[in-house]
Amino acid sequence: MHASELQTPAAVVDAEALDLNLSAMTAALPGPRLRPHVKAHKTTALAARQAAAGHRGFTCATIREVEGMAAAGLGEDLLLANEVVDAHRLGAVVADGGRVTLAVDSPATVAAAASGGVREILIDVNVGMPRCGCDPADAGRLADTARAAGLGVRGVMGYEGHLMMEQPRGERGAKTEAAMALLVRAHADVGGELISGGGTGTYDINTWVNEIQAGSYALMDTAYGSLGLPFVQALFIEATVISVNQGHWAVADCGLKALGMDHGNPSIPGAKVWFCSDEHVTFSADPLPAVGDRIRVIPAHVDPTMALHQALHLLGPDGTVTETWEIDLRGW
Amino acid sequence: MHASELQTPAAVVDAEALDLNLSAMTAALPGPRLRPHVKAHKTTALAARQAAAGHRGFTCATIREVEGMAAAGLGEDLLLANEVVDAHRLGAVVADGGRVTLAVDSPATVAAAASGGVREILIDVNVGMPRCGCDPADAGRLADTARAAGLGVRGVMGYEGHLMMEQPRGERGAKTEAAMALLVRAHADVGGELISGGGTGTYDINTWVNEIQAGSYALMDTAYGSLGLPFVQALFIEATVISVNQGHWAVADCGLKALGMDHGNPSIPGAKVWFCSDEHVTFSADPLPAVGDRIRVIPAHVDPTMALHQALHLLGPDGTVTETWEIDLRGW
Repeated sequence: MHASELQTPAAVVDAEALDLNLSAMTAALPGPRLRPHVKAHKTTALAARQAAAGHRGFTCATIREVEGMAAAGLGEDLLLANEVVDAHRLGAVVADGGRVTLAVDSPATVAAAASGGVREILIDVNVGMPRCGCDPADAGRLADTARAAGLGVRGVMGYEGHLMMEQPRGERGAKTEAAMALLVRAHADVGGELISGGGTGTYDINTWVNEIQAGSYALMDTAYGSLGLPFVQALFIEATVISVNQGHWAVADCGLKALGMDHGNPSIPGAKVWFCSDEHVTFSADPLPAVGDRIRVIPAHVDPTMALHQALHLLGPDGTVTETWEIDLRGW
Repeated sequence: MHASELQTPAAVVDAEALDLNLSAMTAALPGPRLRPHVKAHKTTALAARQAAAGHRGFTCATIREVEGMAAAGLGEDLLLANEVVDAHRLGAVVADGGRVTLAVDSPATVAAAASGGVREILIDVNVGMPRCGCDPADAGRLADTARAAGLGVRGVMGYEGHLMMEQPRGERGAKTEAAMALLVRAHADVGGELISGGGTGTYDINTWVNEIQAGSYALMDTAYGSLGLPFVQALFIEATVISVNQGHWAVADCGLKALGMDHGNPSIPGAKVWFCSDEHVTFSADPLPAVGDRIRVIPAHVDPTMALHQALHLLGPDGTVTETWEIDLRGW
């Protein structure tokens, strides 16, 4: 099948670009230096590629992602880098032989881990973004609480998400250093072998952690594309032009229900995007395309885009669909 | 089961509010005066409620919605209010006994309807929003083209989507009148029994069409909630507080992957939303909730929110889950 035969909108991947991204990251962060974040693609088939490249540990954002990764045989070392108040589904994964390490940032989430049957935790430390993570000064005490509850403490994590898009690069480096100083100090109080953090925007800047949780680098989006990283756009939404208003605008069938919109409008190479509706993107271009033409839309934010699609079609250089992967880690 | 036992984030519906909304709309627009738009809820079980209230014709935005409605026994009169360039799946629905009317706005989409096995069309007329729809002056000629291709021409549609949020109401009325003058003139050239248009924001203002395509009124969102309509918020995302930074903020497990974000941040009654991440909403409130507390988040835009959830849980007044509906019209 050729991409032009896919029902649109369809999530398609330039297989060569994906390979390039995977190789570039593995070269920079081999083996356990990278703990790929599956939230950015929600696809066990893609995670299997990352595992084949030597990254055996993964980062997850949801219980469903942990369950799905374990069921796909990728449960050797799963970090749920997020707090939960009911860990019994994670405990079931552990009972089935998966290794699950759960982030905790409060006595309540420590208690949830212990009562749910999870055996290992990381202390999640707030390094400056107003989200999860304990006060760095509380990390040691929380680790003691976890140990007293019978949990193994593997170390600390701290996500500098507020710095991923910081420009210029030098500024991103300076602020990351300051954020990571908090994490390193917390680690001294906590102990354990893991200092986990980072993302696609700081993968080669954050040298204070010993594993990087990057995910977006594999497929990319226009937000990360603006940073000048050595990763190229691999994900596109294939769309069909369904209406043309001659001399003014065209409309394709790729709208709010096919695109993560929190980072704003998507991009269309060679065109100017006007706005998106539920099932439409309105754009201008010179010349305008014709009704029936195919276009490729680039999402502004990869993660929520993946949550809206059922399948990812890999394309060879001539547009042939070489593989179709189910986006099987959606939902909760 | 009680709502507090649902895995979060979970899409829940105040069943009483839903009933109130359905009744209020049916009272205003009985029977065929309303052609409910299923794109706003993507749930055949909810559509069955609308059908039971006397609305036997439905509006769809995607081929998948048409197929799913017909498969659920709700295919008596389905309007796909959108252009397609390949109608063979719609033709299959027609061959199976469903009635499908397809919007067309160009010779290419007329040809697609005819070759795909669709037998009836509406001329989609542009009434001012830069999206689909032909120039009003071309509508009559396009109807002739359709008739020459053997298609039945049921009338016209024109969606004044750009006016739904126009404030104050008087201004919305004046602009809707001007937009509908274009549609009525096109209808004089086209003929047929249907003049279709309107939405939740103009359901009682647009008296020029003979059927209204409203959908959002059933579940509602904060955008439509700002218009002072007689519909109340029925949809909420049930979420769990997973982290609290005392004196500053709290975090619940309802983020970009559980919310349509194109209209901006969601709302939390009694709280101030700071921002959303993939799986988190950060907010402040006085007092802050505790880890493990449940909260209800109100989406800014209902339609893309529904596309992110698998199920809709109806809640009785005490929070008991009285029914669970599959959101079965997702995808394309």
